[in-house]
Amino acid sequence: MFDIAMYGLGVMGSSLAKNLIDKGFRAALFSKDPKESMRFSHNAHESWRVFSTEKTLAASLVRPRVIFLMITAGEPVDRVIDSLLPYLESGDMILDGGNSHYKDTTRRVHQLKERNIGYLGIGVSGGEKGALMGPSMMAGGSLEGWEASRSILQKIAAHHKNQPCCSFVGPEGAGHYVKMVHNGIEYGILQLIADIYFIMKRGLALDHDEIETTFSEWQSGRLNSYLIEITVLVLRKRDEDGTPLVDKILDVAKQKGTGNWTAIEAIERGVYAPTLCEAVFSRHFSANQRIRTEGNQKLTDSGMPMKLKQYKTQLEGALLAGIICSYAQGLELIQKASDENHWRIDLSETAALWREGCIIRSPLLETIMEALQEEVSNLLISEKFSFITSLEPTWREVVIQAQRAALSVPTLVSTLCYYDRIRGGKMPANLVQALRDCFGAHTYERTDREGPFHTNWEQNGNRE
Amino acid sequence: MFDIAMYGLGVMGSSLAKNLIDKGFRAALFSKDPKESMRFSHNAHESWRVFSTEKTLAASLVRPRVIFLMITAGEPVDRVIDSLLPYLESGDMILDGGNSHYKDTTRRVHQLKERNIGYLGIGVSGGEKGALMGPSMMAGGSLEGWEASRSILQKIAAHHKNQPCCSFVGPEGAGHYVKMVHNGIEYGILQLIADIYFIMKRGLALDHDEIETTFSEWQSGRLNSYLIEITVLVLRKRDEDGTPLVDKILDVAKQKGTGNWTAIEAIERGVYAPTLCEAVFSRHFSANQRIRTEGNQKLTDSGMPMKLKQYKTQLEGALLAGIICSYAQGLELIQKASDENHWRIDLSETAALWREGCIIRSPLLETIMEALQEEVSNLLISEKFSFITSLEPTWREVVIQAQRAALSVPTLVSTLCYYDRIRGGKMPANLVQALRDCFGAHTYERTDREGPFHTNWEQNGNRE
Repeated sequence: MFDIAMYGLGVMGSSLAKNLIDKGFRAALFSKDPKESMRFSHNAHESWRVFSTEKTLAASLVRPRVIFLMITAGEPVDRVIDSLLPYLESGDMILDGGNSHYKDTTRRVHQLKERNIGYLGIGVSGGEKGALMGPSMMAGGSLEGWEASRSILQKIAAHHKNQPCCSFVGPEGAGHYVKMVHNGIEYGILQLIADIYFIMKRGLALDHDEIETTFSEWQSGRLNSYLIEITVLVLRKRDEDGTPLVDKILDVAKQKGTGNWTAIEAIERGVYAPTLCEAVFSRHFSANQRIRTEGNQKLTDSGMPMKLKQYKTQLEGALLAGIICSYAQGLELIQKASDENHWRIDLSETAALWREGCIIRSPLLETIMEALQEEVSNLLISEKFSFITSLEPTWREVVIQAQRAALSVPTLVSTLCYYDRIRGGKMPANLVQALRDCFGAHTYERTDREGPFHTNWEQNGNRE
Repeated sequence: MFDIAMYGLGVMGSSLAKNLIDKGFRAALFSKDPKESMRFSHNAHESWRVFSTEKTLAASLVRPRVIFLMITAGEPVDRVIDSLLPYLESGDMILDGGNSHYKDTTRRVHQLKERNIGYLGIGVSGGEKGALMGPSMMAGGSLEGWEASRSILQKIAAHHKNQPCCSFVGPEGAGHYVKMVHNGIEYGILQLIADIYFIMKRGLALDHDEIETTFSEWQSGRLNSYLIEITVLVLRKRDEDGTPLVDKILDVAKQKGTGNWTAIEAIERGVYAPTLCEAVFSRHFSANQRIRTEGNQKLTDSGMPMKLKQYKTQLEGALLAGIICSYAQGLELIQKASDENHWRIDLSETAALWREGCIIRSPLLETIMEALQEEVSNLLISEKFSFITSLEPTWREVVIQAQRAALSVPTLVSTLCYYDRIRGGKMPANLVQALRDCFGAHTYERTDREGPFHTNWEQNGNRE
């Protein structure tokens, strides 16, 4: 009998299967795609076996059954669930490790609960290597399903100081929600790195080796993180002719949807997340070749050469501040969704899951965990991050210089606006609300009395 | 017999009904709310009559029947349609003048087409006064329904030089889509006005009269528009104690959803629309009192006093450029939605509808109409708007000065980023795509060869 079934043997599924087998679990394997199945020997084997029908797959498992799906998100998940259900019994559980939309996961959790099947949506981060060596996993859905499968999941997960980076974050689609926002934060940080790189390359006209050395130095300092580590790798890589490979890559960035979802969630829930939104827009715009070409031909600018006296320290400060804001926006969004859905997600424990295995892992997450225990309304306001005020002057200088040079780095720029907005106190929203009352009778509130109030604005003088 | 039924007699419905009656139509009136019905005499009358059941309402109409719904968007619309259907016959039509989501309208158009009932989603803009005197109306859905009702609609609409600001923009939810984006543009312009006001008040510390005078001067220049006109009205209005009323209004701006929808559409369709998104975020953030208070207490800034030597001209240029970008973003979004839905919306004719009656009306729309006939990828690239490059230096100066002063005006700032992005040519998206390939094997394209390519980035040296 097998301990767990891995359904779907693509890059991620086969890596997770190997991880399971390495950790001593007996894995029943299945794929509709013969090419995927061929990644594993078809011979009978102590630790794994490839099955060819859902029925024999289910029959091979110890009870309660644990079936881990690693397949394309969307409709295929519903179809596979339907194909498995005839062979499952009360108490069995299905785990979805794909990037499913959290609303689909919530629906499936409730549907399967009616049949007493535990359903878990599991955000898996870390790419192929993470899946193989130990990913970060954010589980949500059926608590009973979690209790029955956690020993397996936590054993194959990444570990930080002996603590598994895998836990139950909340009911319904909470796991997939957290993973979605993880990806949104990743979009933000990637774009900030790209913006800083752009400032060095186009704004300061540094040569490639200087840029590479700078990122490499940052990696041993406060910016230390997986994404800076691989930025160094990428910048170091040479093409066949010995020139930097990155210079040969087309400046068009693709995406798979979780960034869009995060930005949309931020707008729907009213969480100000400009860094994440601008990062998403940057990817979209990069594919818009026609506007890019026409705009570049037709429009002019009054940009002046960029100057930064101590660019290494200044850019390091700007990037660090931006990265902190990316986490702040993502975490605020998770908090809001958790409140509105009654998920009771523990933000600090969520940040703990990101310390190893996932794409946004960084020692900074230790500080974030501590800051979140202060229960402030936003990461920027915590005592632990009060040092962001010391980054602010250089960060501002970088942004102003980039704007002065007419360099397009909207993600970095909008992130300083984010800081200014949180710090700023007064806003001109009183004028907006007065105008709304003027054209649409939408009423307004006053600073000195309880309201609502409506005014006939066309009438002059003191009388209303 | 009556020419048309007005179903729903709230602020907008009753104003439209009065407009219809004024223009000589015989109107059958209906509301579920007795208070609304009481706005009209219950006595039998030549020009109108209030009915108390759907059945008698339908029976009172000439055929084919035209029933105009002016009710709360969402589920109520489906319920009202269901309550009317038993009394309608083939060829009759239902018009929905509320702010329905365009996807709902598309669904209803198809559902009712099966019963041979013409369904039209009509975006109505202009507020109470517009509804009464002549609104701008953007119709979409059943073309047969439009042909049968256009003579009534165009007669009660606003007119620009004898042309009605009311036409059929496309099938399905196209009318409501155009209205939604109209509101998104309105969000952008309102927030830009507020940002410029904020710069005058907080950045330059001008006194109220100077600000009022400045807007008033602008109204007779290139910024001439309805929204600047009412900004002057609002700034002119005094409270009972003689001080400016706007200063007594709480700086919290509300919203009703169409701004959110527009921002979400921009993200989903990949149309870069930072002005509209930041305007939406500004409203959300204004309601976030806890973060505003805590952030203001905890965070510091290195802002310096703001200086603008010729603030009237400089701010005028920045505001004009920003307003042009708001239209550019909204129109690009409509174009993309039209392409993706095969709606064949004529952008220039759409802009024509906005010249009178609606909230974003402005003489600028004449120029926009001409620019759209050039069929460029974006308004900024058209010959008609080539003058935006002459606004760019002062616009940039305003943005840099505001950032230097740590003044939070993200909508204005992100709009200059929008210009820079369209103008900018190269982007650092090659680094983003290389990083995606490094952690997720997402592949990349090259500038010099057809691809996709994947690299093992961890291996150093020239060999892949």
